[in-house]
Amino acid sequence: VAFSPDAKRIVSATLDNTLTIWDVDTGNELLTLTGHFDRIHDIAFSPDGRQIATASEDQTVKLWNGTPAELQAPPQGGNAP
Amino acid sequence: VAFSPDAKRIVSATLDNTLTIWDVDTGNELLTLTGHFDRIHDIAFSPDGRQIATASEDQTVKLWNGTPAELQAPPQGGNAP
Amino acid sequence: VAFSPDAKRIVSATLDNTLTIWDVDTGNELLTLTGHFDRIHDIAFSPDGRQIATASEDQTVKLWNGTPAELQAPPQGGNAP
Amino acid sequence: VAFSPDAKRIVSATLDNTLTIWDVDTGNELLTLTGHFDRIHDIAFSPDGRQIATASEDQTVKLWNGTPAELQAPPQGGNAP
Repeated sequence: VAFSPDAKRIVSATLDNTLTIWDVDTGNELLTLTGHFDRIHDIAFSPDGRQIATASEDQTVKLWNGTPAELQAPPQGGNAP
Repeated sequence: VAFSPDAKRIVSATLDNTLTIWDVDTGNELLTLTGHFDRIHDIAFSPDGRQIATASEDQTVKLWNGTPAELQAPPQGGNAP
Repeated sequence: VAFSPDAKRIVSATLDNTLTIWDVDTGNELLTLTGHFDRIHDIAFSPDGRQIATASEDQTVKLWNGTPAELQAPPQGGNAP
Repeated sequence: VAFSPDAKRIVSATLDNTLTIWDVDTGNELLTLTGHFDRIHDIAFSPDGRQIATASEDQTVKLWNGTPAELQAPPQGGNAP
């Protein structure tokens, strides 16, 4: 389990080989990330808070985007349905 | 085992699934926190020193207040029993 | 797995007892380092980003240069073959 | 294995339950510390570099002085033998 440098998010790994990013203030899940095929045994948040590195028993290291994507507002003046 | 960012407290997990926060200067226990139902395998202090995150074999992640609560003085001028 | 303090590199250990330094932006391997004779169970990047420390089941601790060596240009004005 | 915040020392645990503090520049051992009665499974350097915390399978947490003691010079003007 690791905190983002701004202490607003934590990331944890679960037994089903997924990562979850949580909002510290609300306790809500922000993102669930899949991709590893075996247990994740190590997690690190990057010092700039932008990425997460994981190491897994599947013998791969992965980098993940640690910042949930901004919701994209519809273009102003458009006819968004 | 993890230090608070101000180096004044450490937090550790014990085999009975509890967390203990210790005062570094005195070596005294400040708080014992319970809630996990299986071994705690990871602990992190938040970069702002306000929270502690734990991951446990019980498959939950928990956030804890890393700062012992201030004792609340009775209101001044009141009739506290 | 550990990030360099500038978040530009990560270092990970693999089951064949080697260390790999990766470029975070490109995902490319920068260096593979060998020397341990048993599983590496702990890795730390130095706070100044210049070194990596590893602890291994081979009962040794090693320090590694965390910065890939600059390519040395031939001396200016010389007759480099 | 953990670096001191100034990146000048590392601390590691060995299978005989001891801690060793190493000088990063020279690779020399600075101190060997004993006191745990079972395997040390976690080490942290305090953010101010003054202490080291360890957690051991002997179910204790210990704090250690992370700075090798200064050699005490004999008092000036005395008759030190």
